[in-house]
Formats: sequence, structure tokens, C-alpha cells
Amino acid sequence: MAEKVNVCIVGSGNWGSAIAKIVGANASALPEFEERVTMFVYEELIDGKKLTEIINETHENVKYLKGHKLPPNVVAVPDLVEAAKNADILIFVVPHQFIPNFCKQLLGKIKPNAIAISLIKGFDKAEGGGIDLISHIITRHLKIPCAVLMGANLANEVAEGNFCETTIGCTDKKYGKVLRDLFQANHFRVVVVEDSDAVEVCGALKNIVACGAGFVDGLKLGDNTKAAVIRLGLMEMIRFVEVFYPGSKLSTFFESCGVADLITTCYGGRNRRVSEAFVTSGKTIEELEKEMLNGQKLQGPPTAEEVNYMLKNKGLEDKFPLFTAIHKICTNQLKPKDLIDCIRNHPEHMDDTIIMPSPKL
Amino acid sequence: MAEKVNVCIVGSGNWGSAIAKIVGANASALPEFEERVTMFVYEELIDGKKLTEIINETHENVKYLKGHKLPPNVVAVPDLVEAAKNADILIFVVPHQFIPNFCKQLLGKIKPNAIAISLIKGFDKAEGGGIDLISHIITRHLKIPCAVLMGANLANEVAEGNFCETTIGCTDKKYGKVLRDLFQANHFRVVVVEDSDAVEVCGALKNIVACGAGFVDGLKLGDNTKAAVIRLGLMEMIRFVEVFYPGSKLSTFFESCGVADLITTCYGGRNRRVSEAFVTSGKTIEELEKEMLNGQKLQGPPTAEEVNYMLKNKGLEDKFPLFTAIHKICTNQLKPKDLIDCIRNHPEHMDDTIIMPSPKL
Repeated sequence: MAEKVNVCIVGSGNWGSAIAKIVGANASALPEFEERVTMFVYEELIDGKKLTEIINETHENVKYLKGHKLPPNVVAVPDLVEAAKNADILIFVVPHQFIPNFCKQLLGKIKPNAIAISLIKGFDKAEGGGIDLISHIITRHLKIPCAVLMGANLANEVAEGNFCETTIGCTDKKYGKVLRDLFQANHFRVVVVEDSDAVEVCGALKNIVACGAGFVDGLKLGDNTKAAVIRLGLMEMIRFVEVFYPGSKLSTFFESCGVADLITTCYGGRNRRVSEAFVTSGKTIEELEKEMLNGQKLQGPPTAEEVNYMLKNKGLEDKFPLFTAIHKICTNQLKPKDLIDCIRNHPEHMDDTIIMPSPKL
Repeated sequence: MAEKVNVCIVGSGNWGSAIAKIVGANASALPEFEERVTMFVYEELIDGKKLTEIINETHENVKYLKGHKLPPNVVAVPDLVEAAKNADILIFVVPHQFIPNFCKQLLGKIKPNAIAISLIKGFDKAEGGGIDLISHIITRHLKIPCAVLMGANLANEVAEGNFCETTIGCTDKKYGKVLRDLFQANHFRVVVVEDSDAVEVCGALKNIVACGAGFVDGLKLGDNTKAAVIRLGLMEMIRFVEVFYPGSKLSTFFESCGVADLITTCYGGRNRRVSEAFVTSGKTIEELEKEMLNGQKLQGPPTAEEVNYMLKNKGLEDKFPLFTAIHKICTNQLKPKDLIDCIRNHPEHMDDTIIMPSPKL
């Protein structure tokens, strides 16, 4: 590898551009990094001019992060292989459906000892059903390790420089420091944990819980009920990781990727908002996506479906009554008002480990 | 002890009356309990008529829980000793400042093998400074064990029968079942844990964090920052329990008393609301208490002060920068806008346990 660490950002959407502000500034300030950071930009024409040219001349991604200057050492490159070929660290921040194709293009064209980090929230569908983690897809295709970065990180607020936290999940300890150096800023505080899978899974499962929070809002059940649904959602996230990605630590769920991201998603966030409207309007999710999201797709309902496939396969639906109920509500097998009856006898309430049989005083 | 378990509710405010609906119904339905439940009611005149008489005739606490019927087997008693003398379980749910005096009245007048459970949120001031847990005060005065019940339980929503969860902290396992039987309902789901002190401490410390959440709202710093402050608050709650009440389990903070109650308090709740107004109006906390709370006192600021006393004593202020900053803002030693600078280098971000010294790829 080169003496200095070369960095490439694969992606230039809203989140990719926001993170480019931090990564570019760190690459410029810290001696361990090569100053020039490449950013793969899918070429498109803006008022007849190429987006890469606009970015490289004005240092502003006018399409996806208007009003923010990128550091001048972040260089937009329209060719994926050209952008990535010298990188020691590849930052993936594109919609997840592009990942398999991007990996095919990159295979054999990148440094063999490069590492990747995925900022992509959400699962991919596994062949035959169930879920596939984006970081696993990247590692499988490119044969390089892949860390993840997740947290309560709305892109525009990060770009504004508002204080927040994030979590890097990195199985191999030896990459922890360089990744933290690359992403940490005065307003963007990084905690590195080893439970990479748990960190990534949190980023997808929270969207299921947010649908439940939205149903509660739509049903006007109040603050206590909403808190209970969010908490039971968190418990099911923990159990899901225990079952399908064993070996994680409970403390990981206290990181920004866990409880913090869950909270913001269940109070703000479009999965919550559309799910609330689902209850109050009586329209279908698809109709609401058209009306409220300009046709963009919600992540919660398909994630609930993919998760349900795995739970059903293992005969575990009744151990995850909240996830199961949310999936059934999204697919009209249950009414929203049935949600609470599905969780009244939640396994979390049945834990008798400290209950002794004798009630003697 | 009697064959059947006798229950007395000490207190008849909003929360006491809401819980009386559940406790009364369970005492009536379950054979292990004596049907008649006494409720100590501080006597007052409502339109010339005694409140105890109104409750016993109409089964409605017209002053503190209007519009809800109490079960007829809940009997209002204006004399504290008379109400408590036959009880095997004493449920304390009064403002915490009454506890020492109530205990003095009860000492020697109650069954020696009775147990208590405190539903009182908030600390008492220890002599000489610092904090004293209400359950410890009860145990010290009455020489009986005292469990606690805490959770995301807004009283009116519980009375409405909206679904929620609660946590009972009970050090002695053998009381777990009878306490759960007494409080659990179809809409009020109980989890019993052994970490009684941690459960109780959560109920008080969350109000400090809610002040921080309110400052962030007032400063309009956005969702990411608010999530970070709530999360760091939770981390400081955990550390506080580690230092001052060691031996608790991390899982306790995932219960309703922990993360769920914290969330509702930091999004709803008057500590948050007044703290937001503190920033936007420039008025003092005292002025806002008069204007917004009819002169009632917030719990967050005095709790922050008592906690700060303990942290200062142990030289631990810098390990709890959020609690410390909130106390200093409430007492005008810092400006609200300084909050974030106090937590940028939070010990939670400095944990290098998984960071290796060498950044080699």
C-alpha cells in the first residue's frame, strides 16, 4: 500500500455529499491521509452542464446538497473504476440496489488490501428470501473487509455542522483508528465497536419499529403506548441479532446506531409519518408513497417482509410479535387497531427468571 | 400474616388514583388478595363535603382523577394508621417530602412482616447534601423491605386503560410474584427485575436529561443533536448507577423504567417544556415555574443540583459532563449555548478499548 492512505467515496447523494465535507476536511488536515479524495459521481446533466464539472469548479453538489461547499480536495470522478482504483479505503454510500453491480465493476480493479466501509442503511434481499447485509455483499464480491457507519445522522443536519454522534462497526480492531480518524469531527463524534453486524442490523430494523410508532400515533394511543412499542421494538432488535447474528454485545444497542437512531426515526422520519397516515387515511401504503413521497418507496414495510420471511422459516414469529404484527398490518392481514393485542403477552413480559413460585410474604 | 394478602395504598393523587383502579380490580379478582383495599386519603373538603366520603359514595376521586370510577372495593380512609395497620403490602404514592413524616406516624403501628413498594419518582435530599432514595428512607424508618415501581406511566393514560409497560425493582426475589400479580393488568404489563436501586435512580435522573433535551429544542439544534443528548444522558445514568449503586445489570436500563420513561420525558414532559422556554424566553427557571406550572416546582433542576453535589464530592464532574453542564445552565453558571461544547469530548467518545495504536492497513 501507499505511504499515505487514499480514500474514495463511492456515491454523491445527500448523505454522501454531507460525509464528503467531513472526510475531505480530515484528509486535508491529517498527515496519515492522501489529501486528494475521489468521489464517484453518477454523471448527469444539470441545466446542460455535467454534475462532475459543476462540483469540481464550484465545490458544491447543486443537485443533492445545495448550499454547502465541499472541501476543494474532494474531486468528483464520473468513472467508478477510475475513482476507486487507488483507494485504500472505499466508502460506499449509494442506494443499496446498486451495490452488486458496482462490486462487479470493481472486482479485480481495486487494491487487494483495500478496506471498505458501508454507510448504507437497509438490507438487501437474499436469494431465496430473507435478508443479506450490505457489508456482507461487499465483502463477498470484492474479497475485502467491510466496516459500517450508522447512527442518528440526518444528512442535512450533519452538513450544517450540528453536533451528533455516530457508530462505526468494525470487526477487525486494527482498522478502528484509521476509520475513526477519517470520520471524526468536532461536531461528528465517532464511537467504534466490534459488533459490525449488530450495528448494521440496527440501521434496518429501526424502520420496522418506526412503522409501529406511526400506527400508535395514528391510533392516538398516547405517549405511554408509544414508548412501550419503541421499547419492545428495541427488545426485538436485540433478540433478532441474538438469533441471526450471535455474539454481539448488549452495549452496542446503547450506541448511536441503536437507541439514538431508533428514537429519531420513531419521532421524525418518513416511515413513522406514512404509517400514521396509513391509519388515519385508510389508504394503502402504495397510495401514500405516491402522495407523500413522490413515489419513493418506504424502507419499513419491505424490511418487515424480509424479516418475517426469516422468522417464519425458523418458526419464530411468536417470539417477535411486534415485527410480525407490523408486517401483517402493512400487508393488510391485520388491522392497525389489532397491533396492541398482538403485544399484550409479549415474551418480554413473560420472563419469569426472577419470579419465584411462592408468593409468601 | 393473614391468609389473604392485605393491601393499602398510601396516597390518592393523580397517580395513586390511577393505580388504585388496577390494584383494586386485581385484589377483587385474585384469590390471594383480601378484596378490601384501603386507600389513605388526605382529608379535604370539596364543595363542603369530605373527599373520603365522596370517594366512598361515588367511587370517584373528583379532585385528582375526575371522570374515572375506582373499584368499589377500594375504600378511602382519612387516618393513615387506620388505613395501614392491617396491610401486608403498603403502596407509597405521595409527594416525596411527606415520606419521613408518614413513616414516623407508621412506625410500630404496621405489621412487622409487611413489605412496601414505592411509586414515588425523584430523590430526597440526603442530610449534608447528595441524594437519598425514597425506598431507602422507607426501609430505614419502618424496618421493612421496599420495592419500587417505575416506568413510562403518565397517570391519565394509565387510567384510560391505554397499553403500557412498567418495571418493578425488587431486590428480594420472593416478593416478585405477589407484586406482579397485584399490579399487572391486560393494559399494564409488568416486568420484575432485581436492580431496585437502578430502577429508582432512573426515575429521578431522567428529569435531568429532559432539561438537556429541552435546551436542545430551545436552541433549535435538530433531531441528531437531541438524540445524542438523550443517548449521552442515558450513558451518564448508567455510569451514575455504576459508581453510586454498583452491581446493577445493563439490561435494567432497557426496561420501561429506563429507556422508555426517558424517551417520553424528553419528548413530552414539563422539564423539557420549561427548559425549552428557558432558552427561548431568557427568563429564569423560577419565573417560568410561576408562569407555566402555576408555581409548582420542576424536578430536573434540583435533582441536577443534588447529583452535582455527589459528583463534585467524588471529583467526578468531568466524567459526567452532561449532568454537570445542565446543572450549571440551570444555575446560570453557563449559557444554554455552551451545552454542546461541554459534551464534545465526552468520555463516551474517548473509549479507546477497541482502538489499536497502529493505523496500518
